[in-house]
Amino acid sequence: MKFGIVFFPTVGPRDKPAPQYFDEALRLVDLAEELGFDHVKMVEHYFFPYGGYSPDPVTFLAAAAGRTRRVRLGTSATIPAFVHPVKLAGKLAMLDNISHGRVDAAFGRAFLPDEFAAFGIPMDESRDRFTEGVEAVKLLWTTPDAVWEGRFHRFGPVTLLPRPVQEPHPPVFVTSARSLDSVAAAAAAGHHLQTVPNAMTVPELRERVDLFRTEWASAGHAEPGRIHLTFPCLVAADAQEAARKGGFDEERNNAAISLAVRSWGSTTSTAYPGYEKLANIGRGVSFEDKLADDKLLVGSPDEVRARLERIAESYGDDITLSLGVHSGHLSVDDAVTTLRLLADEVFPKLAHDGA
Amino acid sequence: MKFGIVFFPTVGPRDKPAPQYFDEALRLVDLAEELGFDHVKMVEHYFFPYGGYSPDPVTFLAAAAGRTRRVRLGTSATIPAFVHPVKLAGKLAMLDNISHGRVDAAFGRAFLPDEFAAFGIPMDESRDRFTEGVEAVKLLWTTPDAVWEGRFHRFGPVTLLPRPVQEPHPPVFVTSARSLDSVAAAAAAGHHLQTVPNAMTVPELRERVDLFRTEWASAGHAEPGRIHLTFPCLVAADAQEAARKGGFDEERNNAAISLAVRSWGSTTSTAYPGYEKLANIGRGVSFEDKLADDKLLVGSPDEVRARLERIAESYGDDITLSLGVHSGHLSVDDAVTTLRLLADEVFPKLAHDGA
Ligand SMILES: [Ca+2]
Ligand SMILES: [Ca+2]
Ligand SMILES: [Ca+2]
Ligand SMILES: [Ca+2]
Ligand SMILES: [Ca+2]
Ligand SMILES: [Ca+2]
Repeated sequence: MKFGIVFFPTVGPRDKPAPQYFDEALRLVDLAEELGFDHVKMVEHYFFPYGGYSPDPVTFLAAAAGRTRRVRLGTSATIPAFVHPVKLAGKLAMLDNISHGRVDAAFGRAFLPDEFAAFGIPMDESRDRFTEGVEAVKLLWTTPDAVWEGRFHRFGPVTLLPRPVQEPHPPVFVTSARSLDSVAAAAAAGHHLQTVPNAMTVPELRERVDLFRTEWASAGHAEPGRIHLTFPCLVAADAQEAARKGGFDEERNNAAISLAVRSWGSTTSTAYPGYEKLANIGRGVSFEDKLADDKLLVGSPDEVRARLERIAESYGDDITLSLGVHSGHLSVDDAVTTLRLLADEVFPKLAHDGA
Repeated sequence: MKFGIVFFPTVGPRDKPAPQYFDEALRLVDLAEELGFDHVKMVEHYFFPYGGYSPDPVTFLAAAAGRTRRVRLGTSATIPAFVHPVKLAGKLAMLDNISHGRVDAAFGRAFLPDEFAAFGIPMDESRDRFTEGVEAVKLLWTTPDAVWEGRFHRFGPVTLLPRPVQEPHPPVFVTSARSLDSVAAAAAAGHHLQTVPNAMTVPELRERVDLFRTEWASAGHAEPGRIHLTFPCLVAADAQEAARKGGFDEERNNAAISLAVRSWGSTTSTAYPGYEKLANIGRGVSFEDKLADDKLLVGSPDEVRARLERIAESYGDDITLSLGVHSGHLSVDDAVTTLRLLADEVFPKLAHDGA
């Protein structure tokens, strides 16, 4: 297993001012670099204290690139539907050059009605815009004199500058929602998988991981497929302290998503079957049940190590975990403690490969 | 006078690989920070070795923000026509937060037919898209529950996150082409002026500077209007070495712009009267004539100091100069020498205020 950190701020100006949040996040980037973590990632969201501090993840990742030399830099994810592919391909290529080839490019469809409304994009176009956007970006990255004649964009021949550093292009991840078709299509296309265990049951996640591996293998790609799973994470020396802080953070994160998805209460889209239930999110699975399912990496070092061993058993030990260590609701010191305890007391004792 | 540096790479992969260019540029950012320069800026261009290494200036400026604490960070300029205002306002606000309020936001219309074609934007819409984009970005920065009903965009009510740090918003500059109307409109709107002396004659520039000051004063803005002028700059201890290197760089820059504007040979637009002459650029004014007009800050420290004194006499000593010290065609060591000689031997001896 490999481990990185993912930033998903669920704070707004009244919770923690954005300059402070970014200072703290960059301090954690420096620590991730120092401690040998695989990657740092940043989300893309708008308007709400649900990732809204980061409408452009590349901007944050570039600040991280400017002060690091080793750690990889990932979007988690970026949304092709909201930007022209020349712009998206261009800024990710700049980041790949500034960082000497450290970009992991994850793309997502987005699912919040208010975001689509602000950009004037019908939600029913989200899958087609996602697919066209990812393909157009890959074409720009790989092909001089690129010509694109799509449903939403037409351009070319143009030769993107700068050319990306990584060959043939930065690794492409798809942030999958729940659809099995999407997982299979990603594997077939050679797109790696990034997903959130918290959004499904253990059997559902295992089904998707297995499907991805099977489809990847049958497609005959030269490189191994990568699976990145995102987990909230809080480690403290004292188990009760960890549970108390982890529970508080979980509660605040649930409140943030409830607010952001509220407009699903009055939205239905054939492109998002069942999503209108999102308006009731947070009233479902309890903190204790999530802990019991190892959906939250919360606990003492020994407890978290045991969770990681079970996760490796369930999903394979060739996965990568992206740890949500700083929503912004707790002190940055808690996140520092989490990273240090992971590096000092958890990873060295893992039966499976540590970071 | 204040002084900063502006990056306008005119190299492509065969001249200098982009990772090397960005490494060198960030080394110069560190030096600008250390030597007390006012700002670093980055251009926005696409596809050609005429700024094309930087399709997204905010990405570069964020890398600079991640490693500095004092120097200001400027777009030079960014193009509202090519991106949704929510995206542009959002990433500039992120940069303003990450940098603790160091953003100077300059906006431009763009003028290269190939760039408009790639984004599917008619050039005849460029002025209206520019005006609408700048106003929409300012509304998002200043106004919670912002509602925009424009010709090209409709959104709201939305509250942008993060809120910018600077009050009421980051300083807005307009990168003026030649139009007197644009200069007057900028001053009336409270937009500062950024312009390129090389694109006009000395009397034309003086007319625009005077007009901007007059209109700014009659508009009664509380803050003083700022004028940023961009100059290519190469200083060397030996005057002949400076002239030789400065001449070589000028020649390469002219070749780069000739290639980028070639499509003007087959383009006319009522929105850009006379621009089709751009295809002949570089065949006009000689290096020696530009030196004689102080359009190029090339020479020994004493020569460049004399040029700066004449510039302060011509345009006032409350202007800010953005120095193009690294097109990429010369060694970065030449740019380092330029910055050190400016800081050590030129600025301290200026009769007018130095940096
Ligand atoms: Ca390539
Ligand atoms: Ca293993
Ligand atoms: Ca603290
Ligand atoms: Ca404000
Ligand atoms: Ca003075
Ligand atoms: Ca050198």
